[in-house]
Amino acid sequence: MDLGMSERVRALVEQVRAMVENEIAPLDGEYHAEVGKHPSGDRFQHTARQLEILNGLKAKAKERGLWNFWLTDSDKGHGLTTVEYAYLAEEMGKVHLAAEVFNCSAPDTGNMEVLERYGAQWMKDRWLTRLLDGDIRSAYVMTEPGVASSDAAQLAFEARKDGDDWVLNGEKYWISGAGDPRCAVYILMACTAPEAAKHSRHTMFVMDADTPGIEVLRPMHVFGQDDAPHGHMHLKFTDVRVPARNIVLGEGRGFEVAQGRLGPGRIHHCMRSIGLAEKALELMCLRGLHREAFGKRIIDLGANYDIIANARMEIEQARLLCLKAAWMMDTQGTRAAQPWISQIKVVAPLMSLKVVDEAMQLYGGTGISQDTPLWRMWTHLRTLRFADGPDAVHRRQVARAELRKYTNG
Amino acid sequence: MDLGMSERVRALVEQVRAMVENEIAPLDGEYHAEVGKHPSGDRFQHTARQLEILNGLKAKAKERGLWNFWLTDSDKGHGLTTVEYAYLAEEMGKVHLAAEVFNCSAPDTGNMEVLERYGAQWMKDRWLTRLLDGDIRSAYVMTEPGVASSDAAQLAFEARKDGDDWVLNGEKYWISGAGDPRCAVYILMACTAPEAAKHSRHTMFVMDADTPGIEVLRPMHVFGQDDAPHGHMHLKFTDVRVPARNIVLGEGRGFEVAQGRLGPGRIHHCMRSIGLAEKALELMCLRGLHREAFGKRIIDLGANYDIIANARMEIEQARLLCLKAAWMMDTQGTRAAQPWISQIKVVAPLMSLKVVDEAMQLYGGTGISQDTPLWRMWTHLRTLRFADGPDAVHRRQVARAELRKYTNG
Amino acid sequence: MDLGMSERVRALVEQVRAMVENEIAPLDGEYHAEVGKHPSGDRFQHTARQLEILNGLKAKAKERGLWNFWLTDSDKGHGLTTVEYAYLAEEMGKVHLAAEVFNCSAPDTGNMEVLERYGAQWMKDRWLTRLLDGDIRSAYVMTEPGVASSDAAQLAFEARKDGDDWVLNGEKYWISGAGDPRCAVYILMACTAPEAAKHSRHTMFVMDADTPGIEVLRPMHVFGQDDAPHGHMHLKFTDVRVPARNIVLGEGRGFEVAQGRLGPGRIHHCMRSIGLAEKALELMCLRGLHREAFGKRIIDLGANYDIIANARMEIEQARLLCLKAAWMMDTQGTRAAQPWISQIKVVAPLMSLKVVDEAMQLYGGTGISQDTPLWRMWTHLRTLRFADGPDAVHRRQVARAELRKYTNG
Amino acid sequence: MDLGMSERVRALVEQVRAMVENEIAPLDGEYHAEVGKHPSGDRFQHTARQLEILNGLKAKAKERGLWNFWLTDSDKGHGLTTVEYAYLAEEMGKVHLAAEVFNCSAPDTGNMEVLERYGAQWMKDRWLTRLLDGDIRSAYVMTEPGVASSDAAQLAFEARKDGDDWVLNGEKYWISGAGDPRCAVYILMACTAPEAAKHSRHTMFVMDADTPGIEVLRPMHVFGQDDAPHGHMHLKFTDVRVPARNIVLGEGRGFEVAQGRLGPGRIHHCMRSIGLAEKALELMCLRGLHREAFGKRIIDLGANYDIIANARMEIEQARLLCLKAAWMMDTQGTRAAQPWISQIKVVAPLMSLKVVDEAMQLYGGTGISQDTPLWRMWTHLRTLRFADGPDAVHRRQVARAELRKYTNG
Repeated sequence: MDLGMSERVRALVEQVRAMVENEIAPLDGEYHAEVGKHPSGDRFQHTARQLEILNGLKAKAKERGLWNFWLTDSDKGHGLTTVEYAYLAEEMGKVHLAAEVFNCSAPDTGNMEVLERYGAQWMKDRWLTRLLDGDIRSAYVMTEPGVASSDAAQLAFEARKDGDDWVLNGEKYWISGAGDPRCAVYILMACTAPEAAKHSRHTMFVMDADTPGIEVLRPMHVFGQDDAPHGHMHLKFTDVRVPARNIVLGEGRGFEVAQGRLGPGRIHHCMRSIGLAEKALELMCLRGLHREAFGKRIIDLGANYDIIANARMEIEQARLLCLKAAWMMDTQGTRAAQPWISQIKVVAPLMSLKVVDEAMQLYGGTGISQDTPLWRMWTHLRTLRFADGPDAVHRRQVARAELRKYTNG
Repeated sequence: MDLGMSERVRALVEQVRAMVENEIAPLDGEYHAEVGKHPSGDRFQHTARQLEILNGLKAKAKERGLWNFWLTDSDKGHGLTTVEYAYLAEEMGKVHLAAEVFNCSAPDTGNMEVLERYGAQWMKDRWLTRLLDGDIRSAYVMTEPGVASSDAAQLAFEARKDGDDWVLNGEKYWISGAGDPRCAVYILMACTAPEAAKHSRHTMFVMDADTPGIEVLRPMHVFGQDDAPHGHMHLKFTDVRVPARNIVLGEGRGFEVAQGRLGPGRIHHCMRSIGLAEKALELMCLRGLHREAFGKRIIDLGANYDIIANARMEIEQARLLCLKAAWMMDTQGTRAAQPWISQIKVVAPLMSLKVVDEAMQLYGGTGISQDTPLWRMWTHLRTLRFADGPDAVHRRQVARAELRKYTNG
Repeated sequence: MDLGMSERVRALVEQVRAMVENEIAPLDGEYHAEVGKHPSGDRFQHTARQLEILNGLKAKAKERGLWNFWLTDSDKGHGLTTVEYAYLAEEMGKVHLAAEVFNCSAPDTGNMEVLERYGAQWMKDRWLTRLLDGDIRSAYVMTEPGVASSDAAQLAFEARKDGDDWVLNGEKYWISGAGDPRCAVYILMACTAPEAAKHSRHTMFVMDADTPGIEVLRPMHVFGQDDAPHGHMHLKFTDVRVPARNIVLGEGRGFEVAQGRLGPGRIHHCMRSIGLAEKALELMCLRGLHREAFGKRIIDLGANYDIIANARMEIEQARLLCLKAAWMMDTQGTRAAQPWISQIKVVAPLMSLKVVDEAMQLYGGTGISQDTPLWRMWTHLRTLRFADGPDAVHRRQVARAELRKYTNG
Repeated sequence: MDLGMSERVRALVEQVRAMVENEIAPLDGEYHAEVGKHPSGDRFQHTARQLEILNGLKAKAKERGLWNFWLTDSDKGHGLTTVEYAYLAEEMGKVHLAAEVFNCSAPDTGNMEVLERYGAQWMKDRWLTRLLDGDIRSAYVMTEPGVASSDAAQLAFEARKDGDDWVLNGEKYWISGAGDPRCAVYILMACTAPEAAKHSRHTMFVMDADTPGIEVLRPMHVFGQDDAPHGHMHLKFTDVRVPARNIVLGEGRGFEVAQGRLGPGRIHHCMRSIGLAEKALELMCLRGLHREAFGKRIIDLGANYDIIANARMEIEQARLLCLKAAWMMDTQGTRAAQPWISQIKVVAPLMSLKVVDEAMQLYGGTGISQDTPLWRMWTHLRTLRFADGPDAVHRRQVARAELRKYTNG
């Protein structure tokens, strides 16, 4: 169970870390400050400067071969293991823009994986190539208003067969990335057989984002932020026609595709959140060492040594658990690794939230203001406690796996 | 130690609760949705509709005598005790707009208390009357960039004597309410004798908000929000002239005024945060009862019964502690009550944050979106863990009070 | 809602506190050190010195009228309210022997309450008088091996009618106090109608402890301790005959009696556990102030100020919650007070365990050794988390009471 | 960073696990039940049956070559790495007697390491050989009454030079194993130069346990238990003469020896505590699955799924952290591994205590009684939070290591 950094990935980690720190981080604030400054007043249009920043960085990364690391166990890309990727993802988690710069950001990686693994050749030609090149972006269209997503069998968005087409009607929301004008393709889960067995009711479609009949009702807000121009959009589909050949894998096999997509997606979030926690701990130490009150460095006041020690111990443990889950995926496959993925999916966001919260507290008001990146880290991490399944559901999976040891033997 | 709801306050509580629930809550969302819609594009201008909502509600409250409850132990207002006020403040905490509607909102109550207690008659005539009438608003100008506010002796914003005037220079930030065009008066703490003994260095000034030389550099953001039009402004003072008679209480007595102001201000926040936690618990129960997954009500899944029980037990305990601190203020005075105020200042925000966090989790994505008030509750409460002193400083006060029992005897 | 110390109880509290501190505490260690030194080698016999200590202290307490305080709302005893009793019980919680010295210890108080409230006159004459006088002790015989006591309907210990007698067969365990040679009376719950409705299956009997056919199988150990000579005995009943007139309240009404007994019993444990936590906090402060390491007082190292502040805040809150539950009992009755009793039953032991645990940690090895009373406090408190219902069951009650607000309206 | 179970150790783990489960566990209860049954009445004498059990098991283990695994990185023993040993120690942690059966128990392993690493040849001949053979046992004599052991420079037990001898005077306590009649050798730290620099004041002696002048004052109790016949003895030394050649490594080098001894000792405790937590989780699952209340399996009530999931996640993380610390020792040496050892020294006991506590709670009264091993697990683990340095001191080390990253660069 080698959880260490391999030699080949160590070189990549160093390049990525340097680029994140020296080239991406310095532009991250400017990028965000540009939001809403498009001449049209449309927050969901990138300004020229935003595109310049983003495209400039992406071009550099691609040129250096720092690209598509997430393609693990594949002949495309670097052919890394999931364990190796974890070390890279951690670095990318430290700055908001970084994952996209290396073409390793959600929801694209999951969507590319769906197309790569389950897509027909024409789908690959039409969308996957451009996604792998970073020329377009994508959205994963699953969540519905009024339905607990954790129980996906309840999803009711309708697709009805009509000749050679399927006709889609209903609402979807929290569609991350659907605000981005570069978002060209949707992978969408629809209910095609409401009366069928629980795991055969749904079908996965792939379609152009500009298919007629799709309307953006509003952006969903995350702690008051619209996350423009990325956005988490609330969409309405009215008689949207999609040809039958746009079905991924097969009618009634939506669940299977969704499951295959989720494992890697979940762990990638966790990997990045560990990097984010490292960044927060670094900021906390620096604040403690360089700020004074009552004639002492803040670090020497109160329980701050304990807070720092606890943060270090929890980061270290979460990282190792994440690496073990990755190693399970590499060696036993995603399905067998599920209980470990569920474990890290609960552990990593909770741990990172705690570290960021302590860092905010050490910074006082500054810690929740625009003068540090901590608030954005926090709100992002807080969403991870529901995204891809709420903690409660993952805890249930872990407990079930545990109890099976005694009931199946 | 009667911590119960007195008969006279019970009637007021019922009126306030009804008005909050039936008249204020239904308009709260609309009020916030109006932010940024002023024709000028200036987010720090109220729209006509905002003023209509606010002034309409305030007029009704005033007319009904539901006004200035915070004036405890006073011949003005209702002459309530702090314990009685606690029950009213709790109701006002449940909806964002409510405290202002009843002229009981921060920072005005603290500022009015300063003027009432320490102000010269001319100051009362000029500012206090209008504040008590709800015609103007105010700001408390203390925090400075680069200084740990918890160690107020470090505050360095300069006031220099120049003839009969004082000349103010420096920056102040996190000045809540200074964005509001109705904010007409500042109470400002400046360093007038940097070499003096620690608690004699500072002087409190009262001044018109439009005194020349004051510039708004920017609004400070709270988790990405500018809280417009209220705002937490970053101000720059350049050679701002204030006559000597504008000094409150006396030169070098700024600390004394600040201390007198802080006790009630701190506990009012706590009282409201308890109401807010009650509201969050209510929302959590309703979600649990009315949402289904896996064929069950969500409330019947996982650890939700325990989560609800824990929330109830923690709210109950925090409320009792808050009432005891209030009773100490009523019977022993604010100074003697300090350790209890510090206790509740630590306990109430942490407790409320936890309850709101659990409520968010039960709601899933909806819980952090614009579709529930939970996110705003959370970000507001998070600021309370530094505002008026970070938890660490209050814990230190509590511990010191405890240890004095053994070292002073 | 007056939760304060009334004038009449203040005087009693001072007397009790003084006697606990000056007369009981100094003998507590000696009393425990005598365990097992009876010439017979029987650990469940008091030594002469133990009886001398115990009887001497009891005689003094009785003579001073510091006796039977627990008889709240009664014309016997002091006629205190439950709130008033709480302040006394807190003092008695500080030293292991104290509650018995004042004839206020479990399980006698609960058993006396059963006899007083539900017992026939002959039962009172035969047992209650001597219990009130402190001449005998008693046991409550309910728990059975192999049955989750929290679901009392499962209790299966059999009583069969045979002429005018009932014949008892089965095992009972964790019968606290049944090891004490002074234990003269049992109140016992038996299943008399296994097929009846859930709450009519059981009947409560009162009987002499030396009724033939009762055998002590073994003492149950608590963290390795047999708590001799008090003991928590595992008993076996073989054809034990009890006349029908020994039934309390009526056949099939065992549940009703049990419920009536439990409320006060539960809260008394909580009251004492708060006193115990106060004692532990005192010990912790003294250790911190008087021990040195690395050239500093221990209190000035690490997070100790925070630990002390947290302890103070949690004790204060738990005490207030306990007082509120007591006040509910006084003003609304035990039944209506149930959710509050459940709350404090969860809160008080958890809180006290945490404070004692922190105190042990500050003492290092000494904190778990015979050189401090902390270990005994801890093991005693740990049992409270199941005794009279495990935390999980009480949390469930609290949650249900909460949810009823929304489902019954 | 291979943290997995190597092939060679896998075979050993299977043998050890089988022997622990099938041969040692069934006798563990009987062994403990024999305590105090020696005909002399002396609890610190093994009964014939105890010796039969112990010697029988040891002989089998030795014969099978399941012996002295702890000798890592050595040409004696199995030559295992510390990572490999961790997997074995985990199995040994599951049953109280097991570590001794395989000659891998504290304090012998630490003492053998001292002799092996720093001892003169004659010391090895006289004591080490017999210790390695399991013929005698040993004690480490360091802790003193009245001194915070974490600040070892304070230790004041005196050794004075007198001709060719040193004369020892003073008290030592918490000397684990010194109650055992088989304990034949002491390794003792004495203050030989109170005025010297902090780390040169002390000298380490090795000596026969029966050297004249040593008196056992009493056994220290752990939560009321004397842990006979092992014991944690309080010793008094009166003019005890030890020849100068009995000094280990050199005069004034006691600290160096103590430091070298501590690293492995600390991590071995952690490894075993992880096995113990696994055992407790197993017991918890079995109870939940096989006990019923309210018509359901207990596991299906309340928050039990969450409790089990949390236990699994915390065990998994602690194990990985322990393995990483072991790997650091293997690859970078004990000194460089210190911050990781400190981390796991805080994490493992806290985690295990929590798991055992939850297990006890699920068992109710049974969980703290002699009918399950949980109480003994708990009290043992509780001592680990001070043994070899209290949590607070290890947290401080971890924080310092963290902050050095920013201050030394």
